[in-house]
Amino acid sequence: RVEEERLMRDLHETCEWGVGERWGSAPTETGMSRLSLSDTDKQARDWFTTTTEALGCKVTVDAMGNQFAIRPGMKDGAPTVAGSHLDTQPTGGRYDGILGVTAGIEMLRTLHSQDITTTYPVGVVNWTNEEGARFPISMVSSGVWSHNIPLSHAHALKEVGSGTATMKSELERIGYLGETSCSHEAMSLAAHFELHIEQGPILEAEKRKIGIVQGVQAYKWFTISVAGADCHTGTTSFQHRADALLAASKMIVYSHRAAARRNALASTGILILKPGSTNTVPGSVAFSLDIRSPDDAIVEAVEADCRTAFAALAAGKDIDGLGKDFVASSKSCSVSWQLDTHSPATKFSPICIECVSHAAEGLFGKDAEKLTKEMTSGAGHDSVYTSKRVPTTMIFVPSRDGVSHNPVEYTEPEDCALGAQVLMQAVLRFDGL
Amino acid sequence: RVEEERLMRDLHETCEWGVGERWGSAPTETGMSRLSLSDTDKQARDWFTTTTEALGCKVTVDAMGNQFAIRPGMKDGAPTVAGSHLDTQPTGGRYDGILGVTAGIEMLRTLHSQDITTTYPVGVVNWTNEEGARFPISMVSSGVWSHNIPLSHAHALKEVGSGTATMKSELERIGYLGETSCSHEAMSLAAHFELHIEQGPILEAEKRKIGIVQGVQAYKWFTISVAGADCHTGTTSFQHRADALLAASKMIVYSHRAAARRNALASTGILILKPGSTNTVPGSVAFSLDIRSPDDAIVEAVEADCRTAFAALAAGKDIDGLGKDFVASSKSCSVSWQLDTHSPATKFSPICIECVSHAAEGLFGKDAEKLTKEMTSGAGHDSVYTSKRVPTTMIFVPSRDGVSHNPVEYTEPEDCALGAQVLMQAVLRFDGL
Ligand SMILES: NC(=O)NCCC(=O)O
Ligand SMILES: NC(=O)NCCC(=O)O
Repeated sequence: RVEEERLMRDLHETCEWGVGERWGSAPTETGMSRLSLSDTDKQARDWFTTTTEALGCKVTVDAMGNQFAIRPGMKDGAPTVAGSHLDTQPTGGRYDGILGVTAGIEMLRTLHSQDITTTYPVGVVNWTNEEGARFPISMVSSGVWSHNIPLSHAHALKEVGSGTATMKSELERIGYLGETSCSHEAMSLAAHFELHIEQGPILEAEKRKIGIVQGVQAYKWFTISVAGADCHTGTTSFQHRADALLAASKMIVYSHRAAARRNALASTGILILKPGSTNTVPGSVAFSLDIRSPDDAIVEAVEADCRTAFAALAAGKDIDGLGKDFVASSKSCSVSWQLDTHSPATKFSPICIECVSHAAEGLFGKDAEKLTKEMTSGAGHDSVYTSKRVPTTMIFVPSRDGVSHNPVEYTEPEDCALGAQVLMQAVLRFDGL
Repeated sequence: RVEEERLMRDLHETCEWGVGERWGSAPTETGMSRLSLSDTDKQARDWFTTTTEALGCKVTVDAMGNQFAIRPGMKDGAPTVAGSHLDTQPTGGRYDGILGVTAGIEMLRTLHSQDITTTYPVGVVNWTNEEGARFPISMVSSGVWSHNIPLSHAHALKEVGSGTATMKSELERIGYLGETSCSHEAMSLAAHFELHIEQGPILEAEKRKIGIVQGVQAYKWFTISVAGADCHTGTTSFQHRADALLAASKMIVYSHRAAARRNALASTGILILKPGSTNTVPGSVAFSLDIRSPDDAIVEAVEADCRTAFAALAAGKDIDGLGKDFVASSKSCSVSWQLDTHSPATKFSPICIECVSHAAEGLFGKDAEKLTKEMTSGAGHDSVYTSKRVPTTMIFVPSRDGVSHNPVEYTEPEDCALGAQVLMQAVLRFDGL
């Protein structure tokens, strides 16, 4: 069995690198701000290598900085791994990703201390920039590994905001541009299991302990650019404006309506305008748009709705009452779309799902039905890309109040340990099959 | 008479400091980006001192960095000045403010070359941070001079965006924290005349050359802060969100409607959100709101409308159809207002206006009625604050397409010279009275 205390010690000790906002008075009541490939991410990575090597693993770093810590088995072959990520949101918490990696390490510690040798190799993977918070493609490095994203595109990705760093320049800077090629061929896996916090409210509300994840909803991320004309706020009548921010505001309002009508989600997390002066109407705005639904066709439909409406709103037309009461302008804005991330709906492997169910039954006995739930993930995970190449599934544990991507993100230590136990048993069962 | 070529040479040569965006192929077809108290602003200031001293002036710098270049007259007394500013918007043009200062210098060059001595002293003033683009109070330094803004408040003003510089720290850094106190008492003036581009389309549309400015419309600038909660875009249903950007977007749309209904203006030029990640719903947004009307009561009414509506929109209520079709949320945002600038409607001095009319009649003869127009300024100017202490008025010249706060801002050299001629004659007439 895994040890709860040892697991939580690893988790909280590594959270010293990249401490975020304080939300409570206890020493561990702070969030995380450990952006991918930052100096604090390097510290966490160095710890990952030292710790897993001390547990008998060989650590391989690939061209995207993914770290594979592999522990030999009785026979050679592709390893069965527990994978997740050590990077966080700018205002993230201590569990998203970090729990999955430290639970993998807890599995290694347990095997090591009990001197267990698996049939085939097993291991732990730390995937780079899962969050997509610093470099705006989520799960980009598992995406390169699975050959869904070209390496050159990923290397050239620029950080969000006004910085100029790219993934490649930052990988080089912190010494994590590995020599192994980033590919499921160069670094093959037998199966990928990922323990993660739910990041939603369902398990907690239903008082269940383990989510047996069947798949992941679809999503697309876009950067929408709106171009108008800078002009003076005091001397330019509404009739003469091409106000890029007013147009963008209407688009943001519209996208929420379009998603709500189809029971989907739409969100804008980034908005950057120029020139940024109180008395100059902004001539240029770029904002992110994240559209999600369990159904690929609905994501496409919301996108299509928005494409039509945004073009009309840029031109100053009255769509859906959003032009109501405005003064018509002789000038108009233009709008353009760039697709940043496309993650279609994913179905996980029945064999892996069986391994998780079996592990949960082993743990909970006859209460398993009451304490577990089959569910779909709202968030993307590296398991989306690994599932395209090798049997994959995920295990969810409850998130307090369903909150994630927020410093107060919290999962009970007991639940973390239950998740880690199911993770280890599922990996061992797959290894035995 | 002033010399058009010499005036345009001063204007374009000083625009080498702080060159902005190129918009045409000719050498002078670039905009300006000379933020107040930047290194390039220092270069323009140094030129102002050297040039006016060479023309026989004494230059005084006060505690806000305002520069007063004063040329002695036959008798001692308060000087009649031509004033404006050398700072620009981040994406500004070559005429806003700069024309007023260089035309003042052209007046000095003309008096100097023709060896004219005025009755009382005359001079030129360069006011600091008129634009309010870098430090978000427009006309802040004439406001301190007139005792409408406390010096300590102005000194503590922080630059917009994420920088930490204050007006005082930047005045010190570039060596323009003068020893003279910034006050109409320490540095008294007899009258203030300001030549400026119209920044609107009226003179051009009516084929007139000179605007005789009667006053300035009222405006208020606010920073509106919206607080919600960061959460995951993929796992947080609309029912559980407090989306600060969605609320802010509705407020921006609403403010335009509220202004349009009362024939006023509302504009948002700055919007900053946190944390700024594609897959995190922003928990915090701050945006600027600029409300204008020639009538103080209408500015107040638009503000009152917005205060009521913003509170309701933050709470997720449906105001004016803006909540239509949304999913109701159990969480809500809060909103708070900070007043940054308040510039009530201003009426200029009849004596000064008479000096301008007289100068225009001298120039145009019987065509004066056809070529001039009495008008109200949509933009604020340092003349708003000087008018609270000394007789003041302004002279407008046409702006091509009415465009300002944009690199393509343009006024014909001939029109610049006509304005400078009227400016000089008005100053000389006031001096003679
Ligand atoms: N789990 C998680 O937060 N992943 C980031 C990708 C996404 O936004 O869904
Ligand atoms: N003239 C000018 O652009 N002044 C800045 C203050 C304002 O925004 O009206």
